[in-house]
Amino acid sequence: MNTVVGVIGGGQLARMMVPPAINLGLEIRVFAESESSPAEMAATAIGDYTNVDSVFAFAQGCDVVTFDHEHVPQAVLTELVRRGIRVRPSPESLIFAQDKLLMRERLAALGIPVPGWAKASTAAEVDSFLLEYGGRAVAKVARGGYDGKGVRIITSSADITQWLTALAPGESLLLEELVSFRRELAQLVARRPSGELALWPVVETVQQDGVCSEVIAPAPHSAGRIADVAAQIAADIAEGLNVTGVMAVELFETTDDRILVNELAMRPHNSGHWSIDGSTTSQFEQHLRAVLDLPLGATGMTEPFSVMVNILGGPQAGGLPSRYAQAMKLHPTAKFHSYGKEGRPGRKVGHVTASGDDLADVAYQARGASAFFQH
Amino acid sequence: MNTVVGVIGGGQLARMMVPPAINLGLEIRVFAESESSPAEMAATAIGDYTNVDSVFAFAQGCDVVTFDHEHVPQAVLTELVRRGIRVRPSPESLIFAQDKLLMRERLAALGIPVPGWAKASTAAEVDSFLLEYGGRAVAKVARGGYDGKGVRIITSSADITQWLTALAPGESLLLEELVSFRRELAQLVARRPSGELALWPVVETVQQDGVCSEVIAPAPHSAGRIADVAAQIAADIAEGLNVTGVMAVELFETTDDRILVNELAMRPHNSGHWSIDGSTTSQFEQHLRAVLDLPLGATGMTEPFSVMVNILGGPQAGGLPSRYAQAMKLHPTAKFHSYGKEGRPGRKVGHVTASGDDLADVAYQARGASAFFQH
Repeated sequence: MNTVVGVIGGGQLARMMVPPAINLGLEIRVFAESESSPAEMAATAIGDYTNVDSVFAFAQGCDVVTFDHEHVPQAVLTELVRRGIRVRPSPESLIFAQDKLLMRERLAALGIPVPGWAKASTAAEVDSFLLEYGGRAVAKVARGGYDGKGVRIITSSADITQWLTALAPGESLLLEELVSFRRELAQLVARRPSGELALWPVVETVQQDGVCSEVIAPAPHSAGRIADVAAQIAADIAEGLNVTGVMAVELFETTDDRILVNELAMRPHNSGHWSIDGSTTSQFEQHLRAVLDLPLGATGMTEPFSVMVNILGGPQAGGLPSRYAQAMKLHPTAKFHSYGKEGRPGRKVGHVTASGDDLADVAYQARGASAFFQH
Repeated sequence: MNTVVGVIGGGQLARMMVPPAINLGLEIRVFAESESSPAEMAATAIGDYTNVDSVFAFAQGCDVVTFDHEHVPQAVLTELVRRGIRVRPSPESLIFAQDKLLMRERLAALGIPVPGWAKASTAAEVDSFLLEYGGRAVAKVARGGYDGKGVRIITSSADITQWLTALAPGESLLLEELVSFRRELAQLVARRPSGELALWPVVETVQQDGVCSEVIAPAPHSAGRIADVAAQIAADIAEGLNVTGVMAVELFETTDDRILVNELAMRPHNSGHWSIDGSTTSQFEQHLRAVLDLPLGATGMTEPFSVMVNILGGPQAGGLPSRYAQAMKLHPTAKFHSYGKEGRPGRKVGHVTASGDDLADVAYQARGASAFFQH
């Protein structure tokens, strides 16, 4: 009898769960949206993840069902649970990664440090918030945004008239203080149902146009207080929200020296891709272990530093392999990852990680190797 | 257009090529012998590798064809090449891994140090060799032996009467000096068609009942002369035999301080499994790069020591995953590899690797973690 993990969603996160599943001898099955997807090599069903019967048919043969993304509706998730499917993370936990307003409310209740925030459903509420926070703020749609989509810096309610008028009765937008931060950090944590936690070193994340472009592990100048605070925040959230699997907590390191929570992702996350090559246990292997309630693996780094650079756009034809001959020749230590996607401007199609004991050289190798594909 | 690597044979070596193929965005297709094989997740054809038309039909869609094992007959290989298939390693190189007599003759011609040897097809020739070498020797069938099969220590021609009478006209057995060795080593090398070579650190291999049980990387007390000689031998063979892909050279470190070649494997090899977790570039990724004539990756170790322990036999039911709960709890740094095979006494069903900077602890972790599965 094989141990079977089902993954809803056929994106690159599902794809990157396949190698550790093969290594561990676990059977992985993917419910993909279309015939051609990054995780197609493990797809056993193609369908619509909002259709509960399709998802249930897929899930029946699985020991546990988990996710490539957070978009599966609560109604589908709770019905799967009602029909006896083991869903991890649970719908009750996942809701906080699906709805930014619920997340802010819950984190506030748990005493987790977050930027100033408010709900708003009218122009008057928006303008009142702007007045309180000095005339600038961040507006976010509560559900469905990602990679900078559904997030806007505003100076007037007029900037988001469309979002306000599109709100259904009872819905609100999230308004947040525009935090003055020195840099962004991310703390990756894994938790299994029995309660065991594992934390990787806190990392620095660099964004371009709202999309992660680079990750440095560990975050420079983070030893001591910053690492301790980030770890404590992530542990408190994982326990407070009863998370199962990997969770990424995106953080601001502010100019007034505070660590505030920005966003949560309740799945493996771009900020943890470096762990495939740079940690004893990758976030993808750890996610499989956690959702199966297996003991978690060691999260130490195999080398002192890792730098991961995303490949956005990519070659229009031939994919990353069409440029390996040049890139590999100059960067023999770089680890190349292709998601098997067609190149398209701004699209995440792969990443490169380099590791070693000299951060300047490691960053040079990762940036240099990725440059061959960035257009 | 995908870059497609075809692998003939569906064993664990083909299986372990799948994760790096996924990472690199290469398409891997496996020609397996049966529906259920360790590499079944990548199998696109099931058939008999001695049937040239079956293999050709499989190979037509591949940019290059390589191997999980060395058993594909020369007649099939040369016909594939004649029909325009890119076969790596080439039939002309692979013959030296298929035929131990040809290998010995060629290594001797290249000036590579080997144990004393002779061909023998009669009892008189065997007994004459025994007399010359003090009454004991090793007899080997020239073709088809592996993991201790087809190898026997003899004191008289009567010990191998069956082998002698089974010889076809023109065939011979290989007789070898019974070398007095302190330990066995293995040197892994990769070579691509353009000539570039990459060598991993020389390792110590421990055998039980003729089967590899443990590998220590790097081999203790190998820095300097031993490492240099092993590397030079492997490089000379790789170039002398025009090898493409990964080759393992099994070596004796004799009591009179010589390094002699024992066997060759012209494919990824058990002595290199540690590289999946302990080297910047695993032997499986390197093999893919080499047969595609891509630049080779760095072969340094990510941590100072790695120890790999084979799992022989394994649980009769449920596979390795059925015992992960206990093994992972006590060994969080161990990396577990299951080949998806049913347990059977003496069968290689997986391996465990541990890495770190304290060899005694690394060996303890690898041996301890593997002990959960060894029965």
